[in-house]
Amino acid sequence: MKKLSLLGLLFFTIAIYAQNVQSPSKAINVAFKLTADGKPTYAVTYKTKSVIFESSLGIKLKESGDLVANFAIDSIKQITANETWQPVLGEQSNIKNSYNEMTINLSQIASGRKLNIVFRVFDEGVAFRYEFPKQPKLNYFIVTDEVSQFNLAGNHKAFWFPGDFDSQEYPYTETKLSEVNTDNIDRNNGIGLKSIAGKYVIQSPLMMKSADGLYINIFEAAVVNYPVMHLDLVPNEYKLTSHLVPNAIGDKAYLQTPCVSPWRTIMISNDARDIVGSKMILNLNEPCKLEDTSWIKPMKYVGIWWEMHLGKSTWDYAGSQNAQNAADGKLKPSGRHGATTENTKRYIDFAAKNGFDGVLVEGWNVGWEDWFGNWKEEVFDFTTPYPDFDLKAVNDYAKSKGIKMIMHHETSGSVANYERHLDRALELMKKYGYPAAKSGYVGRIIPRGEYHDGQTMVNHFNFVARRFADYKMMVNSHESSRPTGYSRTYPNYIAAEAARGNEFNAWSNGNPPMHETILPFTRLLGGPMDYTPGIFEIKMNIYDATKKEQVHTTLAKQLALYLTMYSPLQMAADLPENYEKYPDAFQFIKDVAVDWQDSKYLEAEPGDYLTVARKDKHSENWFLGAITDENARDTEIKLDFLSPNKKYTATIYADGVDADWQKNPKSYAIKTIQVTSKSKIKLHLANGGGTAISFKPIN
Amino acid sequence: MKKLSLLGLLFFTIAIYAQNVQSPSKAINVAFKLTADGKPTYAVTYKTKSVIFESSLGIKLKESGDLVANFAIDSIKQITANETWQPVLGEQSNIKNSYNEMTINLSQIASGRKLNIVFRVFDEGVAFRYEFPKQPKLNYFIVTDEVSQFNLAGNHKAFWFPGDFDSQEYPYTETKLSEVNTDNIDRNNGIGLKSIAGKYVIQSPLMMKSADGLYINIFEAAVVNYPVMHLDLVPNEYKLTSHLVPNAIGDKAYLQTPCVSPWRTIMISNDARDIVGSKMILNLNEPCKLEDTSWIKPMKYVGIWWEMHLGKSTWDYAGSQNAQNAADGKLKPSGRHGATTENTKRYIDFAAKNGFDGVLVEGWNVGWEDWFGNWKEEVFDFTTPYPDFDLKAVNDYAKSKGIKMIMHHETSGSVANYERHLDRALELMKKYGYPAAKSGYVGRIIPRGEYHDGQTMVNHFNFVARRFADYKMMVNSHESSRPTGYSRTYPNYIAAEAARGNEFNAWSNGNPPMHETILPFTRLLGGPMDYTPGIFEIKMNIYDATKKEQVHTTLAKQLALYLTMYSPLQMAADLPENYEKYPDAFQFIKDVAVDWQDSKYLEAEPGDYLTVARKDKHSENWFLGAITDENARDTEIKLDFLSPNKKYTATIYADGVDADWQKNPKSYAIKTIQVTSKSKIKLHLANGGGTAISFKPIN
Repeated sequence: MKKLSLLGLLFFTIAIYAQNVQSPSKAINVAFKLTADGKPTYAVTYKTKSVIFESSLGIKLKESGDLVANFAIDSIKQITANETWQPVLGEQSNIKNSYNEMTINLSQIASGRKLNIVFRVFDEGVAFRYEFPKQPKLNYFIVTDEVSQFNLAGNHKAFWFPGDFDSQEYPYTETKLSEVNTDNIDRNNGIGLKSIAGKYVIQSPLMMKSADGLYINIFEAAVVNYPVMHLDLVPNEYKLTSHLVPNAIGDKAYLQTPCVSPWRTIMISNDARDIVGSKMILNLNEPCKLEDTSWIKPMKYVGIWWEMHLGKSTWDYAGSQNAQNAADGKLKPSGRHGATTENTKRYIDFAAKNGFDGVLVEGWNVGWEDWFGNWKEEVFDFTTPYPDFDLKAVNDYAKSKGIKMIMHHETSGSVANYERHLDRALELMKKYGYPAAKSGYVGRIIPRGEYHDGQTMVNHFNFVARRFADYKMMVNSHESSRPTGYSRTYPNYIAAEAARGNEFNAWSNGNPPMHETILPFTRLLGGPMDYTPGIFEIKMNIYDATKKEQVHTTLAKQLALYLTMYSPLQMAADLPENYEKYPDAFQFIKDVAVDWQDSKYLEAEPGDYLTVARKDKHSENWFLGAITDENARDTEIKLDFLSPNKKYTATIYADGVDADWQKNPKSYAIKTIQVTSKSKIKLHLANGGGTAISFKPIN
Repeated sequence: MKKLSLLGLLFFTIAIYAQNVQSPSKAINVAFKLTADGKPTYAVTYKTKSVIFESSLGIKLKESGDLVANFAIDSIKQITANETWQPVLGEQSNIKNSYNEMTINLSQIASGRKLNIVFRVFDEGVAFRYEFPKQPKLNYFIVTDEVSQFNLAGNHKAFWFPGDFDSQEYPYTETKLSEVNTDNIDRNNGIGLKSIAGKYVIQSPLMMKSADGLYINIFEAAVVNYPVMHLDLVPNEYKLTSHLVPNAIGDKAYLQTPCVSPWRTIMISNDARDIVGSKMILNLNEPCKLEDTSWIKPMKYVGIWWEMHLGKSTWDYAGSQNAQNAADGKLKPSGRHGATTENTKRYIDFAAKNGFDGVLVEGWNVGWEDWFGNWKEEVFDFTTPYPDFDLKAVNDYAKSKGIKMIMHHETSGSVANYERHLDRALELMKKYGYPAAKSGYVGRIIPRGEYHDGQTMVNHFNFVARRFADYKMMVNSHESSRPTGYSRTYPNYIAAEAARGNEFNAWSNGNPPMHETILPFTRLLGGPMDYTPGIFEIKMNIYDATKKEQVHTTLAKQLALYLTMYSPLQMAADLPENYEKYPDAFQFIKDVAVDWQDSKYLEAEPGDYLTVARKDKHSENWFLGAITDENARDTEIKLDFLSPNKKYTATIYADGVDADWQKNPKSYAIKTIQVTSKSKIKLHLANGGGTAISFKPIN
């Protein structure tokens, strides 16, 4: 007992002084301290500014007491890391991973249980996580809450949407933190399933800007075997606390030592480009676990998809998406089914003619006649095609044209059913040579009581990526929980939706023009997004005069999105016949690369504008995308990213002089000029507009 | 509106009179009536006696109002059925299915929703179910409760155990209904996971006996896509009400019209043999859905199993069943692992030498080092053997000896994980030629919040049977919900445990001598039980002098169980070396058939005794089993079930004169006599004893 007291004294001696760790550049400092009652806390400064005031850390357990107080420091370790790694697919061929790390090994004095807190400080931000070492007094445990606080130093401007356990498909609201209130958002926003956690619960990634020009982003990385973290806000105090998504019975996570929590990240910079271009989230994930990645290929694709969103055709054979239509088990064809063999061949022809890699077909399989909104368990079997979709014929035809088919697995949220059928679905894909699938999770989750963002579902999405990898196949999940960098570890998890995609423009109030200027600061930090850009027929009244819906961009901005919305899987989402109407603009989509040697974020302001230039991984071609929000924008871009001593033909796809996302969205102008790395280009972006440029070396 | 009123009037005209339907023998009458407020009720009489007083019927829904009152009768239909069908495996080659059926088509006056109640009256009992027809005003719905009442006419003696959502592995308590109180049972009963629903909640099947000698049994049949029904008792009123098992969020069942509830059954007879021999539960299930059943074969087997229960060897390679033993992922062999290639070959040799069909091996696969009690999701992968178990060598060796291997799939309750791996597990079985698996569900269910007896798990057990059928494989589930006749529909669901099996005798307070005299009146009504009889070394102190545990029968009774515990899958559960010590008694296990032409229940009294004679399906051999409870019993059996004009050699395996389950359980006496159908045999059964007889025709 004497010894223990002595140790206790020693601990407290250490504890009263803060332990600091800094970014390589020294701009960011993290100070860790135990309070008098042994509560772990941290604070963050950026240069001379406070960013995070003293904030608590800790984990609450269902049994055997919380891990929030009465700690003493056993030891502290600092290391420095500096490495470069090569992603299989990515925004750049080489990613630098450089940070200082401080690990604080804590013991809870009375219980003897051990908890480590690890900080990594990068030049663009801070990350911390909890480590639960293997120990006699903590083996299996249930997390009931995590109390990671982020006590912000000011009433920042924030781009937020409600903390919803089932959806991130919201448009952003831009207010001060003190003005956050999820009751005030327009809930008639086209989201089919909402599970909003409370008035002051918002989602991470949370992008903010301080009054004095600091960009701050709260997010997480490497969410593996843990639920998604939302954020509880005390609006007038600017205090955020982690809000973990519960399971069916209110528990948050089931863990076994040794294990770790996800990383909680705080990106900080006075330059927004540091955040939008950060690879911190990927860096905080485990390296690639696949030995052979030769089968993981970027892909530009078209698909039978937008025509259903437009109501031109239907996902289901019977045309109503209602089981009552399938009376006596006999489906009566409506004649409006999209996924027919014939229509698929038309898309294959179009894809082949225009140099696309793949064709996605949704609605190919039985189940769509009764798929939505009924919390039904056995909806799809993932293997039975409709009578008018000939799997063999379609795949044979695609092969003859050099086109890869993309399978579609809509689960309707019935994940238990999907997991039960997954191996059979994968075997079917193998049989016909599908290299990839798009998965969907529209609807309430089964196992019932689970949420899209709970530990169970996080594990499911990661499991699916791994299982696809077993088959050397890629997966692109829609309506999944938002990625936090798992694509580094399993790069066949090639993309995800997990945010409000372009589809909302077809049938809801849509995505306001600023939407795409925020996503790169939020959703895209965690991994590629299958946003499905490239809609040329902006206004839906072209299909039906009574329709008021429209895409909230100009046509040129749709082109620019191929750059600003990074993904190695990019759709040309519009109808083939629409592309054929605008062959000159379509040329950009045909030309644009989807995997990159390098990326340069040239201009960035969340909610306002973004300009990025990227160099094709496999050529000397560069591409540039610039977008703006609802406000027109004039800017001048230095082309010093181009290789010196090279001349380039720059084809500029710009908004027409009279372009306006509402009044005249399809006005565009294409011109070709010659440039070098010393050139500057003036760009004019219309209201809701954008510019796309391709640079091809001449010599 | 006028028309509707007129109809309303008509309905009520019908409603005030009871609608009756009788058993073919006319002994049982069911009277259906609507109350003044349109509540459906029924009452049951047996000859002149009331059995069920007026009792309510109805279903409560989560949305859109309950289906319990305000009904009017649309129409009533009666039909008579009389058919005979042939089970693939069974107690008899031909099963008679004879009943009168009354369907009452109800409409709820205000809501317009339709509900049918169907009664089937057999000679040995009543069944009713709810039918939810396809209708515009009821498509998807959630059942929050079922209010099927059974208002019993007296304070009957009952054999009961607690209504537990996760276990039926209880010994029975025999009391009057008024004395039921689950608080009073000994909870130190070896059951690892208990989820007792309340003081006065008990399980069905509930076997009762009235003061005037009527045997009454409340159970259910065809539980498909619905939770298990337990029973709420009002002890002093003898009223039972259905208590459905909830899911993680408290809902009971998710249904879509058209659909049906399970059948609720009330068996009634003044002769207990009518109940123990009833095929009502099977008759109420759907006919076999498999076209080819040639691969479904009865099986007598031995296995690496009892030695683990004894503690002679371990399931896991490392010997501790504790992950801490698997430090750094490296399992250290303890030298006590049961499922080694060598040991398996020993069992295969033993099986081949003694004419068994199969060998079960538990503990063959990685996971057992950390499998129990931790609610862990990823325990077993069902495909990775321990290093000392050579799948190929074992299966090659078994094939060379004509023995079939029985795979083992312990899920530890992590059903999500099992379903995720099931196809891979089945592919492995196919690769090596396994015809069957034993599955296990020890532990809390994952998806977390689900119970063994909820709709999700009922669906799982049925799904597994169907999925095994896809592979032409048989399955024998342990710790599943108790069967309700699904083996008629999928006869490859060859057996289940789902009650307190013989294993409890190895390491707990065990199964009291009356236990096996009750199970045939309860658990076995729903389908075969893998009770694992045949323990010869009754007292565990033979292995370890400090052990007090013992099997609560004599050795001879263990033989008789092969008859009284019907199953087409029968284990000889003891160690090979123990059988070799008693070759004369073992001969009976070698001889006894497991699939039957006919079965005759000769004597039956639940809780006291049972005598049954069965004729082998494929020969003229008969076998007889007689068991008693803790009381010795003398009886005389007429052999008039034997074929006339035939002489038989009867080998009688009886308790020794000094036999007693506690004091001298291994005392037995074997004698051979010649008998005919006119013979009578006097049997003496010791305390906790039994007699087994084989009859082989001489001419």
